[in-house]
Amino acid sequence: MPLAIKALFFDVFGTLVDWRSSIAREAGALLKPKGVQLDYFAFAEAWRGEYQGALEEVRAGRIPFCKLDILHRRNLELTLKRFAVTSLGEDEKHNFNLAWHRLDAWPDVTAGLIQLKRAYWLAPVSNGNISLMVNLARRNGFPWDAILGAEIAGDYKPKPRVYLAAAEAFDCKPEACMMVAAHSNDLAAAAALGLRTAHVARPNEHGPGRGEAAPTVPVDFAVKSLGELAEKLGT
Amino acid sequence: MPLAIKALFFDVFGTLVDWRSSIAREAGALLKPKGVQLDYFAFAEAWRGEYQGALEEVRAGRIPFCKLDILHRRNLELTLKRFAVTSLGEDEKHNFNLAWHRLDAWPDVTAGLIQLKRAYWLAPVSNGNISLMVNLARRNGFPWDAILGAEIAGDYKPKPRVYLAAAEAFDCKPEACMMVAAHSNDLAAAAALGLRTAHVARPNEHGPGRGEAAPTVPVDFAVKSLGELAEKLGT
Repeated sequence: MPLAIKALFFDVFGTLVDWRSSIAREAGALLKPKGVQLDYFAFAEAWRGEYQGALEEVRAGRIPFCKLDILHRRNLELTLKRFAVTSLGEDEKHNFNLAWHRLDAWPDVTAGLIQLKRAYWLAPVSNGNISLMVNLARRNGFPWDAILGAEIAGDYKPKPRVYLAAAEAFDCKPEACMMVAAHSNDLAAAAALGLRTAHVARPNEHGPGRGEAAPTVPVDFAVKSLGELAEKLGT
Repeated sequence: MPLAIKALFFDVFGTLVDWRSSIAREAGALLKPKGVQLDYFAFAEAWRGEYQGALEEVRAGRIPFCKLDILHRRNLELTLKRFAVTSLGEDEKHNFNLAWHRLDAWPDVTAGLIQLKRAYWLAPVSNGNISLMVNLARRNGFPWDAILGAEIAGDYKPKPRVYLAAAEAFDCKPEACMMVAAHSNDLAAAAALGLRTAHVARPNEHGPGRGEAAPTVPVDFAVKSLGELAEKLGT
């Protein structure tokens, strides 16, 4: 193989796990028994819709770095208000916020990671905090070598520090690392720093037909599953 | 169980891995074919003997934080000089330094960790860097949930920040974490912050009869193996 890659770094929300269906399921399980009828998928999309704005507050230095759990909680309050949900107590909101720790993987992911681990060091390089990543790993059987990403870097993707801190943690030059994501902007940021890139198509991430079916930037690999990536990498 | 413990944090050098035999083996494998005859165990002990002094430079703020690999390399140069070994090239010294990434576990460790993982989140809270921890985990089959410790804290044990950063990464109060170590000073520092403690006897860590057969400070548990710890914790 021409590329001497040691480590694979993974985006998680959307790339490895189906946040939309999982959050909609949790919203329904919590709200339906309380008689709160609404479009749970729309609720999930709205909650996620506040994501980039909250990260940008940190990236721009307007607020200090804090764990994604904290930002998710602020965004939950905004979303509950928008959907006029007023019947949740503090414990319920705390537990609802942790729905992001209980997301289910896309069907190809766990087997693909196990195959890739034979040949590469694997880590999430996600904006999710360490405890969130551990819960997702335990739930879905993700075989991480370490949890890297925003929390160890103290900033949020696509800021360069997040990718570079991950490479440094694994004693790798950027070109010995490959970022794997379903989002072209994540891959463009990684590529600008010298990392290799692989795009995984998740065409239904935001709902049927609302996801990236193909990269919009040049990448080293474009695949439809982690199994296909493992095949193309020859593992 | 009266203690509501979520996470177990492990010291690694001496507690989980037998650095002395492993480094002596590597020293022999490298030096013997070159005709360098010396006491390889004494070499291992001398190299390790420089450890606390180097960490103290960082802890005291006299030099900025750097990975343990860097400090090991400085200490290797000192030790080679002391043993009058002058025949190693740069590549050989680089590889010899990575002997710390190739240490073997004590026989009870891997099975004990696998058993403990059923009930607790597990992480090394070691002064070793992340890449070193990954190599030890891959070599010995340690099933970590995440790699915590000095590198994410930016300081070295027994400074409080290292234990507290680990607890925070797992969303735990200190009292929900237990530090597991073969060294009473490590456990005393953890206990002072509110962590629970377990001492694992490694009576031969520094050579036959030269290790802590029992803790010299009060601890919650004192055991002879990780299997015994798992039993006492009821996992």
